[in-house]
Amino acid sequence: MTAPILVFGHKNPDNDAISAAVGYAYLKNELARANGEDAVYEACRLGGFPPETAKALEEHGIEAPRLIESVGEGDKVILVDHNEALQSADGIENAEIVEIVDHHRLGGLVTAQPLRVNVMPVGSSAAVVAREFEIQGVELPKNIAALLLGAMLTDTVIMKSPTTTDFDRAIIAKTAEYVGVDPVEYGMEIFKCRSNPAELPIHKMVNADAKEFELSNGNKVYIGQFETVDLQAVLNREDEIRAAIKELVAEKGYQFVLFFATDILAEGSQFIVEGDTDFVNRAFGIDVTGKSVWMPGVLSRKKQVAAPILAL
Amino acid sequence: MTAPILVFGHKNPDNDAISAAVGYAYLKNELARANGEDAVYEACRLGGFPPETAKALEEHGIEAPRLIESVGEGDKVILVDHNEALQSADGIENAEIVEIVDHHRLGGLVTAQPLRVNVMPVGSSAAVVAREFEIQGVELPKNIAALLLGAMLTDTVIMKSPTTTDFDRAIIAKTAEYVGVDPVEYGMEIFKCRSNPAELPIHKMVNADAKEFELSNGNKVYIGQFETVDLQAVLNREDEIRAAIKELVAEKGYQFVLFFATDILAEGSQFIVEGDTDFVNRAFGIDVTGKSVWMPGVLSRKKQVAAPILAL
Repeated sequence: MTAPILVFGHKNPDNDAISAAVGYAYLKNELARANGEDAVYEACRLGGFPPETAKALEEHGIEAPRLIESVGEGDKVILVDHNEALQSADGIENAEIVEIVDHHRLGGLVTAQPLRVNVMPVGSSAAVVAREFEIQGVELPKNIAALLLGAMLTDTVIMKSPTTTDFDRAIIAKTAEYVGVDPVEYGMEIFKCRSNPAELPIHKMVNADAKEFELSNGNKVYIGQFETVDLQAVLNREDEIRAAIKELVAEKGYQFVLFFATDILAEGSQFIVEGDTDFVNRAFGIDVTGKSVWMPGVLSRKKQVAAPILAL
Repeated sequence: MTAPILVFGHKNPDNDAISAAVGYAYLKNELARANGEDAVYEACRLGGFPPETAKALEEHGIEAPRLIESVGEGDKVILVDHNEALQSADGIENAEIVEIVDHHRLGGLVTAQPLRVNVMPVGSSAAVVAREFEIQGVELPKNIAALLLGAMLTDTVIMKSPTTTDFDRAIIAKTAEYVGVDPVEYGMEIFKCRSNPAELPIHKMVNADAKEFELSNGNKVYIGQFETVDLQAVLNREDEIRAAIKELVAEKGYQFVLFFATDILAEGSQFIVEGDTDFVNRAFGIDVTGKSVWMPGVLSRKKQVAAPILAL
């Protein structure tokens, strides 16, 4: 038996990273079977489950992806929802990347061989995966459809994020109809089952959906987002958050750590920054040194937070 | 009127680089029109026409793409048949890359924003473009189909190159039937109209289809291929070739320049190398120092020449 090809999303996985991996591994296994190929694809994850993902997998009777920490020589892998080595499994430089399915900017990956790369500038990787079912003519099972729909809705903050395109709205509407739910109600139910920010251990809040980026000067920064329906409960813990991200700056040598709590109802985010706050001030024309700042309309890390920082 | 979005292939364009740009610009213009969008797409090129491309454009009444040398701030561009800054227009770091359509390895490009990336590990970019017509449901005009078919055949050396996949064979068969030609005969006709290697100025032979690559040590190398049905005529000029590539090593500071003449009938290539020949010897287990070496079965720069060098 051949070793399975590992399909996984980024470190600190969010709902989209895990759901897109599950959906794409299913699609690839169906295609391999249809074409009489030996290959087997296994959905994996590089970290713990977000609460909404754990709930959805259980509810829909989908096998939970295996936790892996590193990959190595001889491993074949498919990256979903990321394309940067920094955000991928440890040892990724020794594995063979055979495919990428993503919706982020290109992050400088170099491969020795040509590979399939399918990146779209849309709201979620789950939407790119759902489109592939259509293009390849593979039937999308109802439970996988429900999982992908959830990821399309969390990653676009129920279509409120500026990353949401007409393509997203169309495929969300189509998938919701197929699953038999109202997309906005379905999305609100998912957000409600997220962790209570008053009780969550602080390192979980800070790291739950955080990614490393490399600036053009070669320094690393860490940008974490926490989406909530109860912003005040997060802000009540600003001192704890500040201490935790200050520790990250010291320990990991980040130029800065930017943590932002996104209020999905008020449609904006509160920025809390430690380290080189001047850099962040310049990127956004704000003063976030020693105090937190409310950024109305900011919902997307990718488009509204990481992009201005990486463009500086 | 909005500025056109520039669609172009790599420097030293081959038939695939120009044909895929023409085909993709046509497709994007049709899609923009269908969606009532303002955007206009213009096929361009970063160098002279290969003889077979000039002939095909004239024969099929297709407007010749405009020559551009550099791009800059404010330009929006679509890269076809390449994804590496080194192989792209000068000033590419200042332009906004909005899409990539390609069939090469990933070469380390970094963008600030998400974009559409459509790379397939197949024999030609023209085949990726032809597939997009199908997926998008846009009618492929006969003259564009003939141009793309020619590029599919030159880039796969009439399906003899090991880069040729089942996908290529299927789309070549389908496109040839649509155009109303036999693919192998059509391909042979195209190769016959290539330049006579006995008469071609030596710098044209050496640079006609050559690309820069960056080794993991940061040094640059230059790998040029010349496909011919008359290998002896090329080898009669080995001294001239050697002098020309030696000059390139000195002028541009390449770690080495590898020129190889591919005999598409005998299905192999003759390697001629100047500069750090030891590196090439190690990569292929050969001795090419001071003499040329016949490599049976080597037809593909990407898969059989660049890949072993970049993997070292």
